[in-house]
Amino acid sequence: MQAILVEAGKVDLREVPQPKAGKGEVLVKVRLAGICGTDLEILRGYADFQGVLGHEFVGTVIAGSTSLEGKRVVGEINCVCGRCDMCASGLSGHCRKRTVLGIAGRDGAFAEYVMLPERNCLEVPPGVSDEEAVFTEPLAAAYQVVRQVKIEPRMSVIVLGTGRLGLLVAQVLAQTGCRLTAVGRNPKTLGLLDRKRIRTATVDETHRNQDHDLVVDCTGSPEGLGIALGLVRPRGTIVLKTTCLMKGDVDLAQAVVNEVTILGSRCGPFGEALNALARKQVEVASMVTHVVPLAEGVKALRLAGEPDQVKVLLKVGE
Amino acid sequence: MQAILVEAGKVDLREVPQPKAGKGEVLVKVRLAGICGTDLEILRGYADFQGVLGHEFVGTVIAGSTSLEGKRVVGEINCVCGRCDMCASGLSGHCRKRTVLGIAGRDGAFAEYVMLPERNCLEVPPGVSDEEAVFTEPLAAAYQVVRQVKIEPRMSVIVLGTGRLGLLVAQVLAQTGCRLTAVGRNPKTLGLLDRKRIRTATVDETHRNQDHDLVVDCTGSPEGLGIALGLVRPRGTIVLKTTCLMKGDVDLAQAVVNEVTILGSRCGPFGEALNALARKQVEVASMVTHVVPLAEGVKALRLAGEPDQVKVLLKVGE
Repeated sequence: MQAILVEAGKVDLREVPQPKAGKGEVLVKVRLAGICGTDLEILRGYADFQGVLGHEFVGTVIAGSTSLEGKRVVGEINCVCGRCDMCASGLSGHCRKRTVLGIAGRDGAFAEYVMLPERNCLEVPPGVSDEEAVFTEPLAAAYQVVRQVKIEPRMSVIVLGTGRLGLLVAQVLAQTGCRLTAVGRNPKTLGLLDRKRIRTATVDETHRNQDHDLVVDCTGSPEGLGIALGLVRPRGTIVLKTTCLMKGDVDLAQAVVNEVTILGSRCGPFGEALNALARKQVEVASMVTHVVPLAEGVKALRLAGEPDQVKVLLKVGE
Repeated sequence: MQAILVEAGKVDLREVPQPKAGKGEVLVKVRLAGICGTDLEILRGYADFQGVLGHEFVGTVIAGSTSLEGKRVVGEINCVCGRCDMCASGLSGHCRKRTVLGIAGRDGAFAEYVMLPERNCLEVPPGVSDEEAVFTEPLAAAYQVVRQVKIEPRMSVIVLGTGRLGLLVAQVLAQTGCRLTAVGRNPKTLGLLDRKRIRTATVDETHRNQDHDLVVDCTGSPEGLGIALGLVRPRGTIVLKTTCLMKGDVDLAQAVVNEVTILGSRCGPFGEALNALARKQVEVASMVTHVVPLAEGVKALRLAGEPDQVKVLLKVGE
């Protein structure tokens, strides 16, 4: 089958053997896949990944499960052991022995077929299109923020960064009724949020008065935390969604003096994300700037890194 | 009066005018003062402070209050406006307009006399000696940790750093009955904790298996956070007590992937600290390595920076 393979720091379209589903696993024929900031970080060396790239997908189960056979599914990306201390304490997303689809120790979904544990799969409701369902994974990551922080309407909240993830986080937080501002640099994505009636501001026009209750750093940039520390109030909370190496000096003394809470935040609840898509609580179609065939996947990855692109999707199969 | 003054990056013993107590303020004749890591950071440029150094003291009220006149007191170091949004919301320690004794905008206690708001003063119980009372401020900062994190006996907890603050934090956490290990580099201070029957380990012999529920970074070093991220379990908590600039790369991606909570922690409850000293729940006398007269304060500051010193006190008056 064709797949986008990362190997020794290079990315290529290659012919690789089709995976086989083992016990408890299903084989999924990929329909559509999404390119994420983490994919671009991996191409810059993040997580030292080797293998088939890609972790956002929707596809059809073609083998390994009687109940899911022929069904459209999305898939949780953490594949877990079920036995370690983390799994035993209900934190299987943090399994000590986990592999992660297209990120750590397991081939991903930028391929004609992807194999994963059956229990990772969720059926996509009929009212949710492929173009919507492919956003389930990043949307789940956005819902993780409201799982970690109790957000009340009186709270002043900043979503910092209006890229792929920031656009989703802003929509999720807007549902809480909090006093929300999405802060970014990109006029295009700020415009997308304006049209959704979410208040926006540019980074330059946002005063760093340390007076917001919550700041969610979705910048994906080493600068994000420093800006967030200038925005959050004493005893306020920063949710960190950015998984890049912080280069240079980070003045965490501010976090100590102001007794700020910094919460790392990663994957989230797939069920909630799918429900939100089914109920049209979150609109994702306007984020798609290109749909590119898998055969041109390497070009698509380059495209996804350009500043005027939001979400680039890979069309794989039917 | 004589005072240890920081000015334009230099520290000197100087003759300065004695302060006068205004409305709501008291004049305190300093008896004993303590040298803290923050004082040494200020000499390296932290907080850009100019003025009389020193924020840990015990003294006698000699003017400004009828109820406290002649009493031995310790003093909260944050002097607050009572009117800003932080004060109005019960977070006066984070007052927007605060001055801080010997740290920000207000002369400190390495002097014959110090002036501060009457409401900042707490009377020292008769059973608490000057040598104990002078530890109230850093001990309060140690108690802040148990205010911020609910610590249960089943929890595995690391106090990282066994300097002045780490020794106090370790004693406070030991009272919770948690599974505590104090981790440091200094055989002398590790020995002090051994004698208090607190389990200790060196940094080198401590495996970075990310399996502790809570790590309190008292290293005062830019390395501390990185080590703490290697010790804390996924979804665990790091309390940051270190107020230095993080130099170089800080790999906060680990905090995101493991969804770690990082809590900045600064000043704490004076009342609890004084009570603990009165009840002899915390032993501080063994931490004192030198008592130096104020006239030799500059030498004492140099001494306090040496690795074999723990707490250096300045003897000021009777």
